[in-house]
Amino acid sequence: MTFRDKLVNATQRNNSLLCVGLDPDPVRLHGMDVGSFLCSIVEATSDIVCAYKPNLAFYEQMGETGYQALRDVLKAIPNDVPVIADAKRGDIGHTAEAYARAIYDELGFDAATVNPYLGGDAVKPFLMREDKTALIVCRTSNPGAGDFQDLLVTFEGKTQPLFEAVARRAHDWNSRGNVGLVTGATYPEEMARLRHLCPEMPFLVPGIGAQAGDLGPAVRAGLDAEGAGIMINASRQILYEGDAPRTAASARAAAASLRDAIERERAGAREELRT
Amino acid sequence: MTFRDKLVNATQRNNSLLCVGLDPDPVRLHGMDVGSFLCSIVEATSDIVCAYKPNLAFYEQMGETGYQALRDVLKAIPNDVPVIADAKRGDIGHTAEAYARAIYDELGFDAATVNPYLGGDAVKPFLMREDKTALIVCRTSNPGAGDFQDLLVTFEGKTQPLFEAVARRAHDWNSRGNVGLVTGATYPEEMARLRHLCPEMPFLVPGIGAQAGDLGPAVRAGLDAEGAGIMINASRQILYEGDAPRTAASARAAAASLRDAIERERAGAREELRT
Repeated sequence: MTFRDKLVNATQRNNSLLCVGLDPDPVRLHGMDVGSFLCSIVEATSDIVCAYKPNLAFYEQMGETGYQALRDVLKAIPNDVPVIADAKRGDIGHTAEAYARAIYDELGFDAATVNPYLGGDAVKPFLMREDKTALIVCRTSNPGAGDFQDLLVTFEGKTQPLFEAVARRAHDWNSRGNVGLVTGATYPEEMARLRHLCPEMPFLVPGIGAQAGDLGPAVRAGLDAEGAGIMINASRQILYEGDAPRTAASARAAAASLRDAIERERAGAREELRT
Repeated sequence: MTFRDKLVNATQRNNSLLCVGLDPDPVRLHGMDVGSFLCSIVEATSDIVCAYKPNLAFYEQMGETGYQALRDVLKAIPNDVPVIADAKRGDIGHTAEAYARAIYDELGFDAATVNPYLGGDAVKPFLMREDKTALIVCRTSNPGAGDFQDLLVTFEGKTQPLFEAVARRAHDWNSRGNVGLVTGATYPEEMARLRHLCPEMPFLVPGIGAQAGDLGPAVRAGLDAEGAGIMINASRQILYEGDAPRTAASARAAAASLRDAIERERAGAREELRT
């Protein structure tokens, strides 16, 4: 099954646009077995999410222990739930091939976030994997996102922000239907613009919760013509309560609550479209 | 010792602007112990290089075996030779902090390549490490480098290619003297422009050898006012001969030959400046 197939199936089966970010924090998890903690979160939530997204940075900071925890959690995720490597890799062709092998062949992820700054030939090794999906980092959720992403560029004879030029390129790269975008919940206007430019792509949407993005505007900006096509990511608010790790039951309750809130916004948006 | 101190010392001690890229290729190294091979290369070359640069992609593609090989080679590098993590990481603040911990605290690198696309707050956790150096990916060596890096942007009221705007920002980020740039040997004109904008920064220069960049123009474009400030990277031509791994003696000969060729260009450039 391709990433796209898994995503569509999980979204429908679980009535969910919620992606849970599996990001271990060694300070909050002090003294716990990180792999076991993450596996308990997966076991408690796999029927109410559309995808999981481990961010590799949080594993890499723990060395061998983190690598083992990543192996454990990847094994625990059911095969019919897609898993995104949030790695934001980007390097020249020969090296990008090695990154694609690391993420897809060695670790078995279904999709990866990819940084576009190095250009088309750097993204290509990810595009060549037809069953996987490359989520191009386009308009991010952080305060400094606009430093470069919003600079006005001349592209294809038109003045536009850099992130729109990236989206247009990503659209060209999508001949195999295996490209998506990363677009932050904190900037719904920019996301709406990206949905206009790339009506067919899945969007990975970070920035809800700890980063304080509003759910309503983000869902409305990102939904595709089918009323789907977005993966709203939340990590810290599902895994932790303040500085403490949640129990499996508490993580499930937090995930279900957010899943339901997204579904309400989605139903509202559909209703508005109908009238 | 800071990265900058280590670099200046190794450059002078070894009369070298050569950085050896330690990039294991599992196909070429089939059946060999990768860590032992890389350690033999380090042992044979550590008195003729200015730095080493493992590219993490090549280790990550080998899973646990690659991680162990990375640990082995990092341990084998003498403490007075600086080591760059070619990782091209870039993520929002919280995550970038985790990447900085992974690269500097867990693995003990002296410098890292950092992707600027996510903006200043994404780079900041790397800048906060005063003894380390963040090498900002600016103008890369690949054929598609210009796809975005050459787009004309309006920045600080002036029309300029995006990579120049990145360099100007990098210059602002350099208040602690711990920022450098990645600029490909295949584009000497762009490198000369970057040297003009950032006269004080170390440049990491990939693209010689396998990527066919010319040594002479690259050295002349990149040298700073002291006749130094560049790290000319070569990986495949030092580690392999065709499809076979080199012996330690052969790797040393290849490295010495390239080191000497760089020194000749450097002497020529100094002579031209004097007259």
